[in-house]
Amino acid sequence: MAKYKLVREIDVRLADNSYPILIGQGILQNKELICRFLVSKQVLIVTNTTLASFYLPSFMTILSDRQCDVVILPDGEEYKNSASLNQIYEALISKAHHRDTTLIALGGGVVGDIAGFAASTYQRGVNFIQIPTSLLAQVDASVGGKTAINHPLGKNMIGSFYQPKAVLIDLEVLKTLSLRHFRAGLAEVIKYAILVGGALLDDVRTMLAATTDVKTVSEFLEVSDNLSDIVARCCQIKAEVVQQDERESGVRALLNLGHTVGHALEAYTHYSQWLHGEAVAIGLYCAALLSHLQCGLKQDLVNEIDELLFLARLPRRIPVSVDLNALRILMNTDKKIKNNTLRFVLIRGEGDCFLDGQVTETKLEAALESAVEGE
Amino acid sequence: MAKYKLVREIDVRLADNSYPILIGQGILQNKELICRFLVSKQVLIVTNTTLASFYLPSFMTILSDRQCDVVILPDGEEYKNSASLNQIYEALISKAHHRDTTLIALGGGVVGDIAGFAASTYQRGVNFIQIPTSLLAQVDASVGGKTAINHPLGKNMIGSFYQPKAVLIDLEVLKTLSLRHFRAGLAEVIKYAILVGGALLDDVRTMLAATTDVKTVSEFLEVSDNLSDIVARCCQIKAEVVQQDERESGVRALLNLGHTVGHALEAYTHYSQWLHGEAVAIGLYCAALLSHLQCGLKQDLVNEIDELLFLARLPRRIPVSVDLNALRILMNTDKKIKNNTLRFVLIRGEGDCFLDGQVTETKLEAALESAVEGE
Repeated sequence: MAKYKLVREIDVRLADNSYPILIGQGILQNKELICRFLVSKQVLIVTNTTLASFYLPSFMTILSDRQCDVVILPDGEEYKNSASLNQIYEALISKAHHRDTTLIALGGGVVGDIAGFAASTYQRGVNFIQIPTSLLAQVDASVGGKTAINHPLGKNMIGSFYQPKAVLIDLEVLKTLSLRHFRAGLAEVIKYAILVGGALLDDVRTMLAATTDVKTVSEFLEVSDNLSDIVARCCQIKAEVVQQDERESGVRALLNLGHTVGHALEAYTHYSQWLHGEAVAIGLYCAALLSHLQCGLKQDLVNEIDELLFLARLPRRIPVSVDLNALRILMNTDKKIKNNTLRFVLIRGEGDCFLDGQVTETKLEAALESAVEGE
Repeated sequence: MAKYKLVREIDVRLADNSYPILIGQGILQNKELICRFLVSKQVLIVTNTTLASFYLPSFMTILSDRQCDVVILPDGEEYKNSASLNQIYEALISKAHHRDTTLIALGGGVVGDIAGFAASTYQRGVNFIQIPTSLLAQVDASVGGKTAINHPLGKNMIGSFYQPKAVLIDLEVLKTLSLRHFRAGLAEVIKYAILVGGALLDDVRTMLAATTDVKTVSEFLEVSDNLSDIVARCCQIKAEVVQQDERESGVRALLNLGHTVGHALEAYTHYSQWLHGEAVAIGLYCAALLSHLQCGLKQDLVNEIDELLFLARLPRRIPVSVDLNALRILMNTDKKIKNNTLRFVLIRGEGDCFLDGQVTETKLEAALESAVEGE
């Protein structure tokens, strides 16, 4: 039996659901551990074409003692749609999966979101396990029970809150990511660093400064030895926020820092130009600029956020080709809108963010204009 | 302001949701009452072509002080599908409905199920109010938070548990139902009468015996004066069961009496031959026959159930044209299956039902064969 090393176990404690997040190395190869969370006789694995070639054969060996079916989706945010969802439903029904089956999301945020939504709606809800394989999914998307598919007019417009039975985070799998996909996940890490400030912000800064010029993910992991600790701290923050506010009626909305503009940019380009994390990176810079105009965020911290994104080699500027009016119209599908008013997560200082429903069109326009490339 | 008469108010008390069921006359015309439950500035009404002509103009007048949009679906179980669901999503997105909007289901079980599912998944969940207009929806479908759409291979395969903010039952609207649609609802009433037995069974028998030969719903309501009381008692039973077991891990499954065969018959005929209640009526008779074979239900009670269905002028036999093997295969999508085993709700006696996972293929075959027309 393959050995694994556990880095951290975090429990997400909710009113009627509690579940563990296991973070470690070699988890995906450990049959005993996987089977501890997999009690059903039927399993459907949802993954994508890229990951299937890496992990599927060995992972299916672990599950060879039960009915194990697979749906392999094309890789990319543009496939997080109703066609992919139907592909999962068709597989579940045609292979006669019953209400006591388990869906496993083996993949990044796209796979996790769509498999989670399928699990929450097939026969009114079946078991679900998250095995996130991208950095973005490990630090953010796999924790907290948000599931969704996109609509051509807006990101994550159709979805549910539906908690997994477990989140199994194997840090080993990060090595198979392209550097671009890995770096996209750093945008969410930077988001957490801004949200809580202090030691996490310092450690993230140190990690990014040391790894700016690496050429591969393996090199990143060699140069910086604290990524696994940072992943665990991000999960811990997310777990605590979700425990306070599972359905985002309050504090959970702060985790959307950078996402209002980020989601609009994704919809504007039909989910094809940027990875989600890259769009969030631009969104974080816009949030910093808007915070400067709206609530006096100091220029030093605006610059620091810009610098962190630069060190992570993430995009930070809106391309000149983007029509800013069209972008603002796309923000009308933002899920934080209340009483017809758009609310932004703004930054007063490090570790001090809040939801602001008083941002004027003029200030938003000014912030977006300052974020355009070459401005 | 139009007056209304309240017959009963029942509270459904759940761990993190509580909501009222109001049963009365004239509710739909009472602006103050409707607006008590409708606090949002945006409303989307989901209804069908038949009901729209009866109720929509006056109902929309009540809501004229806010953004009020409408989706009118074709009438019929065969439209409880993903195309209708998408029609609702499209309306919500194109009219810029935000997370604080309210969906109102103004219709029977089909409208309620599909609007409820749309409400549970649009932006991960928005407010939802049930205004059931059919007898079936008033006594059963509108209470308890089951939402769903059908899949060509199985009834209610895609859905969620999602509770409304209120259920407003106006008994006046029953008068506009066709007698056939009204009688279909009596199947669920008979189901409750078998499940609890005693006084309810007596009162239902009396009501049905007195109304067998009526020609219109209005005549039914004139001849029998206790329907509103019976509706209230059915809602009360459902509320109590749902409070004990919201997500159907135990006792709630008993409410599926007659539905395993009923759902298979609906899927077999692509939801076009019988109304849901009519298929359940045949299913109830099959459940009685199977209970006789499997757990010794006395022939007297089998006959009594047959008689009740006859008095309600409901179908009770499987047509000879139905392929019983194909019907049994369709039961493989039943949501009560556990460890690959079909479980049936069986009847030991009046007020004494249970879930049985030990029914053999042979006994099921025998019961279905005895239920065929002319046997």
